[in-house]
Amino acid sequence: MKKAVVLLSGGIDSATAMAVAKEEGYALYALSFRYGQRHGIEIDKAQRIAQVMGIKKHFILDINLKKIGGSALTDAIEVPKGRGAGDISRSIPVTYVPARNTIFLSYALAWAEVLGSFDIFIGVNALDYSGYPDCRPEYIQAFEKMANLAIKAAVEGKGTITIHAPLLHLRKAEIIQKGIALGVDYSMTHSCYDPHIDGKACGRCDSCLLRLKGFREAGLNDPVPYAEQ
Amino acid sequence: MKKAVVLLSGGIDSATAMAVAKEEGYALYALSFRYGQRHGIEIDKAQRIAQVMGIKKHFILDINLKKIGGSALTDAIEVPKGRGAGDISRSIPVTYVPARNTIFLSYALAWAEVLGSFDIFIGVNALDYSGYPDCRPEYIQAFEKMANLAIKAAVEGKGTITIHAPLLHLRKAEIIQKGIALGVDYSMTHSCYDPHIDGKACGRCDSCLLRLKGFREAGLNDPVPYAEQ
Repeated sequence: MKKAVVLLSGGIDSATAMAVAKEEGYALYALSFRYGQRHGIEIDKAQRIAQVMGIKKHFILDINLKKIGGSALTDAIEVPKGRGAGDISRSIPVTYVPARNTIFLSYALAWAEVLGSFDIFIGVNALDYSGYPDCRPEYIQAFEKMANLAIKAAVEGKGTITIHAPLLHLRKAEIIQKGIALGVDYSMTHSCYDPHIDGKACGRCDSCLLRLKGFREAGLNDPVPYAEQ
Repeated sequence: MKKAVVLLSGGIDSATAMAVAKEEGYALYALSFRYGQRHGIEIDKAQRIAQVMGIKKHFILDINLKKIGGSALTDAIEVPKGRGAGDISRSIPVTYVPARNTIFLSYALAWAEVLGSFDIFIGVNALDYSGYPDCRPEYIQAFEKMANLAIKAAVEGKGTITIHAPLLHLRKAEIIQKGIALGVDYSMTHSCYDPHIDGKACGRCDSCLLRLKGFREAGLNDPVPYAEQ
C-alpha cells in the first residue's frame, strides 16, 4: 500500500483532499501545524478528522510563525469581515501568512522521505480561494520541481515526488459535493479565521463567507454553527 | 541599506557567506535553527559570529526535525568516521537530513518577506561538499524560482527574491581564503558533526575531514581544538 503525506488543517479543503487520497488507495499520514494561528481550534478538528478517516499516523508539529509575524492570522492585525466576493478575489489579503504553504510542504517533503513516500496531498484550490499566491498551479508545479532536486530518494532515482492538489481547479461548491460523495463529515471541519470564544464560526471573515457561499451553491446546509450569518 | 536574511549555522561556510553579504553592503538578519542536531554547540558559535559581525537581528528558531527523523545528525545513528575523500564524495551520507535546506530556506523566505528583504544568503557549496543534493546549483535555482511564485511581495511585483549562494563554486580552501580576506575569525566557528563533551571537534567525521583538508590546502592552521586529527 503506497503511503501519502496529507497536509491537514482541519478545514473543508484539506479534509476533502484527504478523502481523495484515501479513495485512491493510499495509506494516510496526516501532518498538521500549530503555527500560532488564532484559529487554533482547527487542530482539534484535524485530530477528529484524522481519526475517523483511519489514518496511520498524525503528526502535529509546533512551529512558531508568530515569531516571524506578518499576518492577521498570527498577529494582532484585525481579520477583515463582511467583504464582498469581489473584494475577496481582488487582492492578497492580510490573512496571508508569508511562505506558509512553502514551510508546510517542506516539512511534508521531509516526512515523506523518511516514510519512503513520494506522494504529498495538499488541499489548495485556485478558484474560490482567498487570493493566496501559494495556492496557484504554477506555484505547486515549481515546488514539485524543486522537491525532486532536493531530496536524496529522488536524486538517487528511487522515485519522483508528486504534489497532489486534487482540488486545484474546483469551485468550493464542487469541493463540497466531492467530499459529500466520499463520505466526508463537514460538521467536523473548521474554516473560520476568527472563531468566537465558544468555538462558533464568525460567519463574516473571508473564509466563512467562501464556505457559506460554497454550501449555498452546492444546495446544502453547512452543518457547523455560526455566531452570525 | 538593503536587508539580507543570512542562514547561519555556525560553521565555516555560513560565517563566510555572512561576511560576503556584509561586504556587499547588506544590513544583516541572521537565522539559525535548533533542529535537534547532536552538534547543538554550533548555535552558541552562531550567536558569537552574529555578534561580532554587527548584525541587526538574530533569530534562533526551534524546529524539531528529530521528531521526523531520518538522519545521523538528529537520530541515534552513528556518524561515520575516518572516511577517505573518495568515500565522502561518492554517495549521499547518513548525515543527510531530509529536506533540511528546503525547510531552512522556507523560513528565511517567510522572514525576508516580513522584513521587506528580497535577498537570502546561504553558504552551500557544490564542490568540497558532503554529497547533499540540496547543496547543488540546480536545487538553489529551483528554490529561487518557486520562491518567486510563493510570496505576496514577489507576485505583486515589489521585487524578486534572489537566493545568494556565493560559495557555490568554491573549494573549501578557497572559501577559507575568502573568509580570511574578509576578516572572518574561524576560531569562532564549529563544523564537527559529533563533538566531544568538552566541545572539541572529533577530527574524524566527514565535516572535520573536509574542514581540515581545506585549511591544509589553504596553507593555514585550523584555529579550533580537535580531540584527534
